[in-house]
Amino acid sequence: MVIGIPDVGLVGPIATSFMVKNLKLELVGYLDSNVLPPILLFHNSEPLMPLRFYSNDKNLSLFYSEIALPPEHLYSFSEYLLDFAIKRGAERIIMLGGIAVPNRINIQKPKVYIAAIKEEDRKFFSERNFPLLKEGFMGGAYASLLKQCYKKDFSGIALLAESHLNYPDPGAAASALTMLASILNFKIDIKPLLEQEEEIRVKLRELMKRTIESMKTSGKEYEFTVPAMYA
Amino acid sequence: MVIGIPDVGLVGPIATSFMVKNLKLELVGYLDSNVLPPILLFHNSEPLMPLRFYSNDKNLSLFYSEIALPPEHLYSFSEYLLDFAIKRGAERIIMLGGIAVPNRINIQKPKVYIAAIKEEDRKFFSERNFPLLKEGFMGGAYASLLKQCYKKDFSGIALLAESHLNYPDPGAAASALTMLASILNFKIDIKPLLEQEEEIRVKLRELMKRTIESMKTSGKEYEFTVPAMYA
Amino acid sequence: MVIGIPDVGLVGPIATSFMVKNLKLELVGYLDSNVLPPILLFHNSEPLMPLRFYSNDKNLSLFYSEIALPPEHLYSFSEYLLDFAIKRGAERIIMLGGIAVPNRINIQKPKVYIAAIKEEDRKFFSERNFPLLKEGFMGGAYASLLKQCYKKDFSGIALLAESHLNYPDPGAAASALTMLASILNFKIDIKPLLEQEEEIRVKLRELMKRTIESMKTSGKEYEFTVPAMYA
Amino acid sequence: MVIGIPDVGLVGPIATSFMVKNLKLELVGYLDSNVLPPILLFHNSEPLMPLRFYSNDKNLSLFYSEIALPPEHLYSFSEYLLDFAIKRGAERIIMLGGIAVPNRINIQKPKVYIAAIKEEDRKFFSERNFPLLKEGFMGGAYASLLKQCYKKDFSGIALLAESHLNYPDPGAAASALTMLASILNFKIDIKPLLEQEEEIRVKLRELMKRTIESMKTSGKEYEFTVPAMYA
Amino acid sequence: MVIGIPDVGLVGPIATSFMVKNLKLELVGYLDSNVLPPILLFHNSEPLMPLRFYSNDKNLSLFYSEIALPPEHLYSFSEYLLDFAIKRGAERIIMLGGIAVPNRINIQKPKVYIAAIKEEDRKFFSERNFPLLKEGFMGGAYASLLKQCYKKDFSGIALLAESHLNYPDPGAAASALTMLASILNFKIDIKPLLEQEEEIRVKLRELMKRTIESMKTSGKEYEFTVPAMYA
Repeated sequence: MVIGIPDVGLVGPIATSFMVKNLKLELVGYLDSNVLPPILLFHNSEPLMPLRFYSNDKNLSLFYSEIALPPEHLYSFSEYLLDFAIKRGAERIIMLGGIAVPNRINIQKPKVYIAAIKEEDRKFFSERNFPLLKEGFMGGAYASLLKQCYKKDFSGIALLAESHLNYPDPGAAASALTMLASILNFKIDIKPLLEQEEEIRVKLRELMKRTIESMKTSGKEYEFTVPAMYA
Repeated sequence: MVIGIPDVGLVGPIATSFMVKNLKLELVGYLDSNVLPPILLFHNSEPLMPLRFYSNDKNLSLFYSEIALPPEHLYSFSEYLLDFAIKRGAERIIMLGGIAVPNRINIQKPKVYIAAIKEEDRKFFSERNFPLLKEGFMGGAYASLLKQCYKKDFSGIALLAESHLNYPDPGAAASALTMLASILNFKIDIKPLLEQEEEIRVKLRELMKRTIESMKTSGKEYEFTVPAMYA
Repeated sequence: MVIGIPDVGLVGPIATSFMVKNLKLELVGYLDSNVLPPILLFHNSEPLMPLRFYSNDKNLSLFYSEIALPPEHLYSFSEYLLDFAIKRGAERIIMLGGIAVPNRINIQKPKVYIAAIKEEDRKFFSERNFPLLKEGFMGGAYASLLKQCYKKDFSGIALLAESHLNYPDPGAAASALTMLASILNFKIDIKPLLEQEEEIRVKLRELMKRTIESMKTSGKEYEFTVPAMYA
Repeated sequence: MVIGIPDVGLVGPIATSFMVKNLKLELVGYLDSNVLPPILLFHNSEPLMPLRFYSNDKNLSLFYSEIALPPEHLYSFSEYLLDFAIKRGAERIIMLGGIAVPNRINIQKPKVYIAAIKEEDRKFFSERNFPLLKEGFMGGAYASLLKQCYKKDFSGIALLAESHLNYPDPGAAASALTMLASILNFKIDIKPLLEQEEEIRVKLRELMKRTIESMKTSGKEYEFTVPAMYA
Repeated sequence: MVIGIPDVGLVGPIATSFMVKNLKLELVGYLDSNVLPPILLFHNSEPLMPLRFYSNDKNLSLFYSEIALPPEHLYSFSEYLLDFAIKRGAERIIMLGGIAVPNRINIQKPKVYIAAIKEEDRKFFSERNFPLLKEGFMGGAYASLLKQCYKKDFSGIALLAESHLNYPDPGAAASALTMLASILNFKIDIKPLLEQEEEIRVKLRELMKRTIESMKTSGKEYEFTVPAMYA
């Protein structure tokens, strides 16, 4: 199951919503809770819940959120989502996200780092020379999901593209998508993403703002430092 | 059941209270809870609860609130109200509300957008060339109610008139009422509403102030942006 | 049962404490709770709980608070107090309070408005030409008590004297007392109240301060505006 | 049981800790709870819990706190402590405390006022010409304990020495101790207390700071005003 | 069981992480909870929970946290950790920590004070002329753990090196480690710790920042004052 949750650079929602449109995935469900803000979407005049599941005929499924998640409920959210994925027969979860780099402005093609819970996954990626996240902290929704994977010994993989921290980053989303496509063996044309960069940035300003607030209390600050163990 | 809850431009309370007076609806009940502020009203020296149900001999019923609802309880409020409406045999709920537009001052006749949960309702409206809400977020009490309709596959319809965000907007209320009258086939003279514009604005200043506060934590800010999916 | 709770102008505590002294009512009980601040009083070296019940040989009973009530517990407080009054055989509760008027300084004899829950009470008062509260919001502890009376169809009457909002107002208390005496048919000399005006104002400054704070979150602001229904 | 809890002028902890040392009382127990801050003391390298019980061979027992108590838990704390004292056979609780006076700086020998719950105690003191607290509010931990005594008709006595409000006041503690000694018939040399005045003031600055904060939300402000009943 | 929790100067995490590396301890478990921030670490691309248990073949076990603990949960955390240690057969817990001294900058070799719960432990240390903590308050996570030891009469020992309060202090960690090595009879070369001083300080800035915040509400301020008992 591919996962796109608002985080650094909004890489997740940008990449997963682009997938839904381009791979013509079908809406198959939603997730709701009384701790989520009272928000509903409309598209082509049809109502849509802000947290939704999509899939295609084959075995690609996707979970995606249009709104920032409340940081104080990340633990129970992650626990619920992973249990759900396992019950539905998912073999792994692949999160699309960003990793903030200060010099993002000078990077043409953002690199994508892979964080993987299971030894066999790390072996798979390193054999293919995919760059693994080596050292450091992860915070936020994806760290919470990876912790649940760790506790349940489930295959959890995060693709973290070099990204702006506080601006929606379609370029980073494009890099993450390209990596995902090469892992899952599907084709996707990421050019439109790069062309709409400025447009997307304006349109997602509120989601970015709420995401930044949400990140403040979910341990993201640790990400820019080094664990004591390796200091 | 027609619903008027304080929201953008106070369109709901202005329009529904006008209906009660002009259609001579009768008070049939109230809703109370320990999470509501301790407020009671008097009219012609008679006490009135701030959240009330009205109806006529025929099948028109109406729910209406004189006070802003506490945003942290919108979920349970919506769940309760919809369950109640269904149990009482309501076929649909029609919410009267506003949609903030920056250039409201230049608009003579505010347009009314329709957000509808059920496919058959949307078909009904588009066949009659009524303008449907196409793309975007909805937040606040009505989004919360529409989410409940979505989850229960119940007919939920919001009539959203172009409105001032932070000022009571009798003109928007008049437009919403006109639309409602044409849908439900009743006659109502909205001229008095337009004539009392300034008076109403002054009188509802406290309700407006509380409503603005309440909207701050109920996801209304998303309304001015575009979902990632369609960015 | 006559009730004096700190509210606008502290009319309730000033009037009821004056009654206790002048009518020589006897202490018959108290109300305590873990949500009240840890406060105890001493009078003639004897300890007194801050929320107390008094009565005389005949059927006059009185409840009275020396401290501001926590606004977040008004609902359960009102529910408890009314249930208690009913269980003890009270036929009605009469609250002594104030209604803030901006020009209080120019008013010699404050007028007293009556808010009454039951139709028969309103008839009784209007037949005697007592002025009923016609239109508007009531907020705070008395609104909370009147709501409970409304829900239980119990006779609840509030005597609201024109009063300063933020200053203890013995003059308003005198007016409320005079009205109460004429309703309940007892005699009371209110002159001392008027003579001690300045003294009382200084002595009750802390209670006034706490009461103002408590009123901030109990819907009192609505009192100066007009319900949408009658805008 | 003699009680010393941080309050006005830290009279309680100063006086009771001095008693423990001078009367060579023995440590017999402690009180702990998950609502207390995580604090432990060391004395002569031995660990000590911050809330402790002491006693001597005869029937003198003492409870004493080195830290400010959380104001939101005073009710349950008082209830627990009194129940415990009663179960252990205590005949009365005597609290050592302060009563803030503005002109403390000009007072050589602070006077000690006695607040007593039971009629027989008040009679005992007035027969000996000990000054009783006549009129006014008491707030804070001791008011909370006295309220529990009132509710359980148990002998509760507070010795309140004229004191600085915001500075540790060994002089006030000496006065309270002298009064206690004359009531309980023991001898104590209070000279050392007076000699270490400045030293004690510096050493207890953190406890004073926390106590001031704790007093802010426990009704102490009422202490400087007059109850409505006697205004 | 040796324990390293972020506190004054981060002595604990610096010292224990150094032990893990140098004594080649093995990861044997972790502790997680929904009250911890959503944080995961990576080392050599492998995921690591932020609170971990290590041990060697012999009977040395170690618990260590990479993140600041939420102060409002220290009580239940300490209770849990100690119960766990006891169940696993630990004979004692030895905490590595710091004690803030204002003149740290002038101290070449920080002294280490020992706080010990059990009489026999204190005897052991004083016979070997190890300096015991004589007088004063302890606050924070270690005070919370020592309180639990006190309540369960379990051997709890804190080694507190003179340390900077607000800067990571590898020199203090080195002193604490040297003391631990001499107690537990193992050899460790602390030179690398001293050489990386500046590097470590930069790398641990976020952990230091969070730890400072956490210390604010866990009674650490009392540490710089003297208990009333000994004032």
